[in-house]
Amino acid sequence: MFGAGCLLRALRSCSSAPCPRHKPSAKLSVRDALRAQNTSGERVKVQGWIRSVRSQKEVLFLHVNDGSSLESLQVVADSSFDSRELAFGSSVEVQGQLVKSPSKRQNVELKAEKIEVVGNCDVKTFPFKYKERHPLEYMRQYPHLRCRTNVLGSILRVRSEATAAIHSFFKPSSKMKVSEENFFNVPAFLTVSGQLHLEVMSGAFTQVFTFGPTFRAENSQSRRHLAEFYMVEAEISFVESLQDLMQVMEGLFKTTLMMVLSNCPEDVELCHKFIAPGQKDRLEHMLKNNFLIMSYTEAVEILKKASQNFTFTPEWGADLHTEHEKYLVKHCGNIPVFVINYPLVLKPFYMRDNEDSPQHTVAAVDLLVPGVGELFGGSLREERYHFLEQQLARLGLTEAYQWYLDLRRFGSVPHGGFGMGFERYLQCILGVDNIKDVIPFPRFTHSCLL
Amino acid sequence: MFGAGCLLRALRSCSSAPCPRHKPSAKLSVRDALRAQNTSGERVKVQGWIRSVRSQKEVLFLHVNDGSSLESLQVVADSSFDSRELAFGSSVEVQGQLVKSPSKRQNVELKAEKIEVVGNCDVKTFPFKYKERHPLEYMRQYPHLRCRTNVLGSILRVRSEATAAIHSFFKPSSKMKVSEENFFNVPAFLTVSGQLHLEVMSGAFTQVFTFGPTFRAENSQSRRHLAEFYMVEAEISFVESLQDLMQVMEGLFKTTLMMVLSNCPEDVELCHKFIAPGQKDRLEHMLKNNFLIMSYTEAVEILKKASQNFTFTPEWGADLHTEHEKYLVKHCGNIPVFVINYPLVLKPFYMRDNEDSPQHTVAAVDLLVPGVGELFGGSLREERYHFLEQQLARLGLTEAYQWYLDLRRFGSVPHGGFGMGFERYLQCILGVDNIKDVIPFPRFTHSCLL
Repeated sequence: MFGAGCLLRALRSCSSAPCPRHKPSAKLSVRDALRAQNTSGERVKVQGWIRSVRSQKEVLFLHVNDGSSLESLQVVADSSFDSRELAFGSSVEVQGQLVKSPSKRQNVELKAEKIEVVGNCDVKTFPFKYKERHPLEYMRQYPHLRCRTNVLGSILRVRSEATAAIHSFFKPSSKMKVSEENFFNVPAFLTVSGQLHLEVMSGAFTQVFTFGPTFRAENSQSRRHLAEFYMVEAEISFVESLQDLMQVMEGLFKTTLMMVLSNCPEDVELCHKFIAPGQKDRLEHMLKNNFLIMSYTEAVEILKKASQNFTFTPEWGADLHTEHEKYLVKHCGNIPVFVINYPLVLKPFYMRDNEDSPQHTVAAVDLLVPGVGELFGGSLREERYHFLEQQLARLGLTEAYQWYLDLRRFGSVPHGGFGMGFERYLQCILGVDNIKDVIPFPRFTHSCLL
Repeated sequence: MFGAGCLLRALRSCSSAPCPRHKPSAKLSVRDALRAQNTSGERVKVQGWIRSVRSQKEVLFLHVNDGSSLESLQVVADSSFDSRELAFGSSVEVQGQLVKSPSKRQNVELKAEKIEVVGNCDVKTFPFKYKERHPLEYMRQYPHLRCRTNVLGSILRVRSEATAAIHSFFKPSSKMKVSEENFFNVPAFLTVSGQLHLEVMSGAFTQVFTFGPTFRAENSQSRRHLAEFYMVEAEISFVESLQDLMQVMEGLFKTTLMMVLSNCPEDVELCHKFIAPGQKDRLEHMLKNNFLIMSYTEAVEILKKASQNFTFTPEWGADLHTEHEKYLVKHCGNIPVFVINYPLVLKPFYMRDNEDSPQHTVAAVDLLVPGVGELFGGSLREERYHFLEQQLARLGLTEAYQWYLDLRRFGSVPHGGFGMGFERYLQCILGVDNIKDVIPFPRFTHSCLL
């Protein structure tokens, strides 16, 4: 009855048992090989894809990358290893000795004893060419292959680090020191996207967040919109004012940005160099300054006084457009700016009434950032039963939202929250102009290549 | 131009500046209050919902919970504070002194100096009653309120811990010691759900994972299916056999289970007590034994010899049903069992051909666990161009999957991966019978209450 199980146990003991005659090579990622302290000829195995081949009279140089770092591992082999199969894009397994490199360009190199081509690459039809610098627009045609390029590799590693940073901001590991900046030290949930659902949870847990894909059937071809994008949403109970929310928003942006900059500096640097020179200074400018705050009313005044001609004439009661957002950020010296207290008529029914007639605004807040415009949107929620009931009645939604009204009948609390578009966040920190370049598989109107 | 910004800076300095006459109370979560070391009368503020009220002649006892822990904080107040508004379910803000409790039931209690009812609770219409033990079926009717009960609170805290455990298994924080069990130390991506997309990424990064919602239009009313569920998926390049995959699957299950047990023992204990007595022993049994392995062919032989009468007669070439899965797990002494090498005709086109005619199986693997049945499904993927081309041609899919074939033309590598249903994982560890009780907002056929 348990006989079958012995198979796994048997294999396990085999792989861990020392076998003096054929000591198996330790399998290392490229990243770990590059960081190895022991370079006194330890025998290792590295697997990955060839990024470059340089054949000299007696020596063959390969650069092998496995996605674990931007830098590739230099493999040095006797020219007898040379073969047409060792081509740009092929996958290989290399066994050999890890030694100190005589060159200053790298600390470590791999002296090959055995090179096995795992999968060939047809260089003639492979859309990326050795040593050629392909524009992002060109790469976008090959969503299934572009992650093999340096720049997309870097963008995706940054995306991965930023994802981890966001999780750790909201839910620091119990083993890590919790700084005061790490606000969310109570349960966090990856749940159905949607603020109303988070509000349900915030009736029992005082700080909740969610991070996952969101779908919008927006018929937009802009450089800032996708039909599927990732969103971070947070909801906080017992908030007293928009200030409480804005502090968390600013903390989330700055803390995660600092984590990304410190955890993958080479990838960020490559992106900046390739895509947005000068971006590093712009980020430091954002990090060292407190974000600004202006009311919607002040914003409209500033836009009205602007010397610039806008396509949409700024007017109190009208939405802010991208051109307006960008102007406001520039006006603020390229420091991110919170715009607060929007007209009630522009915003959804659940936002908290400021009772400031005749203007009649709600406690909404958007964060505008350089290059991107709106990055966060949030508000205090209407926690007062009768205010909410009136709004729902006006819209004929009372019956459908009975459950939502219930939240105000049973132990209601002042609360508020916000959402941050994750791809726009990546655009902002990397200086990437087109949102389609910061998500592995962009889906947008009339395009769902994969 | 920067005037507006002064508002935030001004508020900041105000809240942090010492103000000797009215020293503000430190705001504490219930969890932090319960763990406080300093109980020499520190003045604090706690916010949450009333879980119980006990009024004695001269003293009033309240228990306040804010979702940060299962345990509530005892508030002791002079009976002059008593009021009808201090009811089960109301939200309150309490200020007072944190002191050592004279009772043995808790270490710490809050001596109230000020109690403010933030939101009333209409106890007559509130669906949950004080001191009553409501069945899970009853709670399920109130998806917007059930998270306020003890048992759903615990389930959702466990869900949150398990989410964090899964992230940390795949992507250990650089600040934490990486144990050998933590397999995925290279980039991880929260991306579009779907194994084929992970395969794209695995052509550049050797270990990738994704964790997010998945949608299936399954017309099922079973206790194991949802229209929207969460799935963890991983893909590993350069795998040599199913053994490599099974080791990661077993490691993921055991490592995350141990983390959950150690990080929220009270919540797990409450769930077991309320829902599944004896479950802790069953989990320890799974943890201390190596998982078993049997082939599909062996599994069918075992089922054929079984004394039990099945609704579906077991037969080579037919799918395993839930009744079969449960029998096999029992047969294995309630140790999770991997079933491997299924008939090619039962499985999707991308699974790797074992070339073992006349049987003709593929390198697929399912992990069956006690109580739930199938928890993981995975396979080696067909990395050989001509094998895959034949399968696609047979199905008339060659054109649609040209991009997928491309992955085999340009540096193909042996690879494989698996998916784990997150809600089934929670069912398995908590002993929860119905999948609708381990997700905040269950969506299933003909039901989308919220």
